[in-house]
Amino acid sequence: MHRTKIRVVEGVLDANDTIARANRDDFDRAGVAVVNLMGSPGAGKTSLLEHVARGRGPEGVRFGVLEGDVQGSLDAERLASLHVPVTQIETGEGFGGECHLDANMVRSALPSVPLAELDLLVVENVGNLVCPAEFRIGEHHRVMVSSVTEGEDKPLKYPLMFRACELVLINKADLLPHLDFDLGKLLYHLDAVHPGVPRLLVSAKTGEGVDEWREWLLRAAAREPAAV
Amino acid sequence: MHRTKIRVVEGVLDANDTIARANRDDFDRAGVAVVNLMGSPGAGKTSLLEHVARGRGPEGVRFGVLEGDVQGSLDAERLASLHVPVTQIETGEGFGGECHLDANMVRSALPSVPLAELDLLVVENVGNLVCPAEFRIGEHHRVMVSSVTEGEDKPLKYPLMFRACELVLINKADLLPHLDFDLGKLLYHLDAVHPGVPRLLVSAKTGEGVDEWREWLLRAAAREPAAV
Repeated sequence: MHRTKIRVVEGVLDANDTIARANRDDFDRAGVAVVNLMGSPGAGKTSLLEHVARGRGPEGVRFGVLEGDVQGSLDAERLASLHVPVTQIETGEGFGGECHLDANMVRSALPSVPLAELDLLVVENVGNLVCPAEFRIGEHHRVMVSSVTEGEDKPLKYPLMFRACELVLINKADLLPHLDFDLGKLLYHLDAVHPGVPRLLVSAKTGEGVDEWREWLLRAAAREPAAV
Repeated sequence: MHRTKIRVVEGVLDANDTIARANRDDFDRAGVAVVNLMGSPGAGKTSLLEHVARGRGPEGVRFGVLEGDVQGSLDAERLASLHVPVTQIETGEGFGGECHLDANMVRSALPSVPLAELDLLVVENVGNLVCPAEFRIGEHHRVMVSSVTEGEDKPLKYPLMFRACELVLINKADLLPHLDFDLGKLLYHLDAVHPGVPRLLVSAKTGEGVDEWREWLLRAAAREPAAV
């Protein structure tokens, strides 16, 4: 029984990887760099994308967003109001709420994404620290947002997510003076599960670190080695 | 294909409900009131339970915790240090991380829970605003913690979770002066998806609202109608 269960799940993940590769081929053919942006509900994913949308990039880098949400188009509307091309995936239709994007959901949305008009596509995943890390969607890069309000223990509790990403945005830095939060402890835990992973302390409220985040994205769009 | 997929998921939920009923029967036979505590990663579920553990209840109300975590026993250790009987479920064993507790995981843990020595068992679910709302575990009550740092839009984005619970703890009230957060807007959205659901503004840091939260739990343990 237990063995059967695991076999089914492996099958699901295999099928997902096959579709993810097809997505990746489409992104590469169109010359679009794709970033899968993950994090808890309310970590600040959309706010950090709004900063990117507001800033000026080097000429010729065209930025779009694919929004995954269980229900509603609030985040998509926030970004569309900044004149960013946004495509919305509502995951709620299938089961009363999927907790992550998978490669097939992204594939179903691709006809509505203007790939030919983009250099960079950020896919904002459903707010969740577990399942999004298990499903590749064809992305080139995985980035996560972890808010300082979530506590220092999160890398130890959700190690797969913190290991899956190649950049960790530590958001809401403006709240540090008001929290019992030890940044050194978070970084220690981060290095315990993903040694040396690049990290940026940012604040969507004050704009701290946001230029570096935008530059990281622009380097990703230019297919330059990503670093911070 | 689509129809088959939905049929499989319905089957999973049916099987879950059957096991949840068996759990509920066991809880009722033992005279233990069970509360399923849900919320985002870092919303403050464990901190609010620490407050309950530290406070004095009326004589004779014995309190225990069943901890669900993807990995590690950090939360269980925090509570055990306060002399609360804690049983730990690590969900990570099955698939590299389950994003919720289901009735069978709870059932598997029951032999390790000292039901005969408890009046109240709080099950701290995995931090996630989607799937925990879909899986009953045999609980009598469902409570969620929503932190003000997560933003006012969460009821609209995760309506199933906000509808599933009968009490919403709005945590981290101490941070309100430092946030661009409109409490009225959160409550408006909350009433849009779950009109009139009882809510308590609390702070695990300052202790605001924590006495009311403890009293709510004690009434639940006494099988009195829950209200705030």
